Amino acid sequence: MTEACSKPMLQALRGKSVSPAPVWLMRQAGRYLPEYRELRAKAGGFLDLCLTPEYAAEVTLQPIRRFGFDGAILFSDILVVPWALGRALRFEEGQGPVLEPLQSEDLRKLRQEGLTDRVAPVLEALDRVKTALPETTTMIGFAGAPWTVASYMIEGGASKEFLKVKSWALGRPEEFQTLIGILIDATVAYLSAQVAAGAEVLQIFDSWMGSLSETEAERWSLAPLSRIVEELKVRHPQVPIILFPRGAGLGYTHFAETSGADGLSLDTTVPLSFAKTLQKAVTVQGNLDPAALVVGGKALESGVERIMATLGQGPFIFNLGHGILPDTPPEHVQRLVNHLRREAS
Amino acid sequence: MTEACSKPMLQALRGKSVSPAPVWLMRQAGRYLPEYRELRAKAGGFLDLCLTPEYAAEVTLQPIRRFGFDGAILFSDILVVPWALGRALRFEEGQGPVLEPLQSEDLRKLRQEGLTDRVAPVLEALDRVKTALPETTTMIGFAGAPWTVASYMIEGGASKEFLKVKSWALGRPEEFQTLIGILIDATVAYLSAQVAAGAEVLQIFDSWMGSLSETEAERWSLAPLSRIVEELKVRHPQVPIILFPRGAGLGYTHFAETSGADGLSLDTTVPLSFAKTLQKAVTVQGNLDPAALVVGGKALESGVERIMATLGQGPFIFNLGHGILPDTPPEHVQRLVNHLRREAS
Repeated sequence: MTEACSKPMLQALRGKSVSPAPVWLMRQAGRYLPEYRELRAKAGGFLDLCLTPEYAAEVTLQPIRRFGFDGAILFSDILVVPWALGRALRFEEGQGPVLEPLQSEDLRKLRQEGLTDRVAPVLEALDRVKTALPETTTMIGFAGAPWTVASYMIEGGASKEFLKVKSWALGRPEEFQTLIGILIDATVAYLSAQVAAGAEVLQIFDSWMGSLSETEAERWSLAPLSRIVEELKVRHPQVPIILFPRGAGLGYTHFAETSGADGLSLDTTVPLSFAKTLQKAVTVQGNLDPAALVVGGKALESGVERIMATLGQGPFIFNLGHGILPDTPPEHVQRLVNHLRREAS
Repeated sequence: MTEACSKPMLQALRGKSVSPAPVWLMRQAGRYLPEYRELRAKAGGFLDLCLTPEYAAEVTLQPIRRFGFDGAILFSDILVVPWALGRALRFEEGQGPVLEPLQSEDLRKLRQEGLTDRVAPVLEALDRVKTALPETTTMIGFAGAPWTVASYMIEGGASKEFLKVKSWALGRPEEFQTLIGILIDATVAYLSAQVAAGAEVLQIFDSWMGSLSETEAERWSLAPLSRIVEELKVRHPQVPIILFPRGAGLGYTHFAETSGADGLSLDTTVPLSFAKTLQKAVTVQGNLDPAALVVGGKALESGVERIMATLGQGPFIFNLGHGILPDTPPEHVQRLVNHLRREAS
């Protein structure tokens, strides 16, 4: 594919050293951009924004126009999947997502058939973005990992202790496996539909993986994610997959060695010398502290330089270690992109 | 000291393999115990409870009487230090601690002199507990680590993003170093006074260490903690020190090799095979998922057995990977203690 060869992010995910390093930022479309806040005010609720193709596409493209990122990640939310499975979902200002907490008896009511029809607006948004992208920009589709999505579904929103979902996982593991199985299938179907609509790379976010002990992490994070990667590789062998097992710590080694993923997104805490060892097996992506991007100045520069000095040679994609913070000055993002491209020239 | 020889926890911290493994649980005095809730209702606010020696001592002793733990950790709070430095502090029901957020200009107003006088009620509580302890039970004093305490002081309470404290640490590192220096001195003075009042082991909690990147973690977590250990070892060479750099991930290796601590408390995510490698350098303590103690049954049993199978031989203290949860049935705690002592007999 000649097209792919001109896309730095795809090259990096195929194991090449690319200079300047491809760059995109988690949550690059969002509240730190005035043009986002303007459109958000028009769109109504957050879920309306995600499910109105015209808006979702426009919001996705805003940071691409401003900064020329190498990857465009579809503006959406990982909770589109439970919503499409029939769970009530709303986003409350300042509180985040609210779902009706899933009970055992709700399991058989989850609407697995027709899921891709219900996410049609998301797929249409993706298609619109793809058509409008510069030819060097890679279209990134995404979904939440089963453990993280199950956590939201059972807890009914964000959680600190994860006691409800862990009570289920530890106390009724067979039943919890049923839910995880449903989420594996739904995630494969959803991501596969995103590829059909134009996604060239898929990233799967296991944001709450860091709440689990080693044994539970292998069972509820690594195993389901490996299964999803396997299924997707059968259907779309050419589409690279990035996993983000946030907080995996030493578990990153297992993910690099056994998950089958092409790339691993590293959280802020991952030591760079350790990250370098992972580059033998996978492309690594990360991991600037989002706070350094808010602070700017020397903190930003030295943070970027340390990362580039250690990881810049390997197969590497520059990113943050977590989503961009709403307080981030857009000028700092511009400075980051300029810095990466200037240093390499 | 013949006394020390009869205390399993002190033996383990001197590098011995002890059977049955000594056991205590973080937050073992607390809301999951009906006798705690009863006394709490009488005491008024949470801070009143901490600062009334009679109450603090009684609450500390409650779980010792019930379960015969090998360690008694003083019932108190890590925010006693900023309070003693002159910062306003209150605890709001369901919200946690609230402090007046520290500004640059407040730095020189921190009241360093006379700190140990102001914490006299805490020291008196410790003295009362020590007198009442069974002779095999080790008295544990504790404090928060500079990074974690500074986070609370600057953020004004618990935080998700740590943006205020990181803006300070990344943007004005020299000034932030001044605060960290004050907290190092205050912590050494506070812990030293606890030893004088009867503490036989000291544990320092860096609960928010997992928010930092590698470089910042070395500067703001490992370096200050190593300094505190060094100072305390000069004053009290016989008192073992346990550090809890929660979320350190791979950073645990640095703590084991360079901090000078006798013991490391491991959070829930630390893989057991990795923990075993740390036992060459330090005594490890941990790391059962607190949720497993709530769930009980097989989840509890297999969790305990996995930990004991891997770490039980080395210098080891059984504990949780994080504080006990308020929903924990006291019967499960009893079962855990019985299990550990039965298996060893």
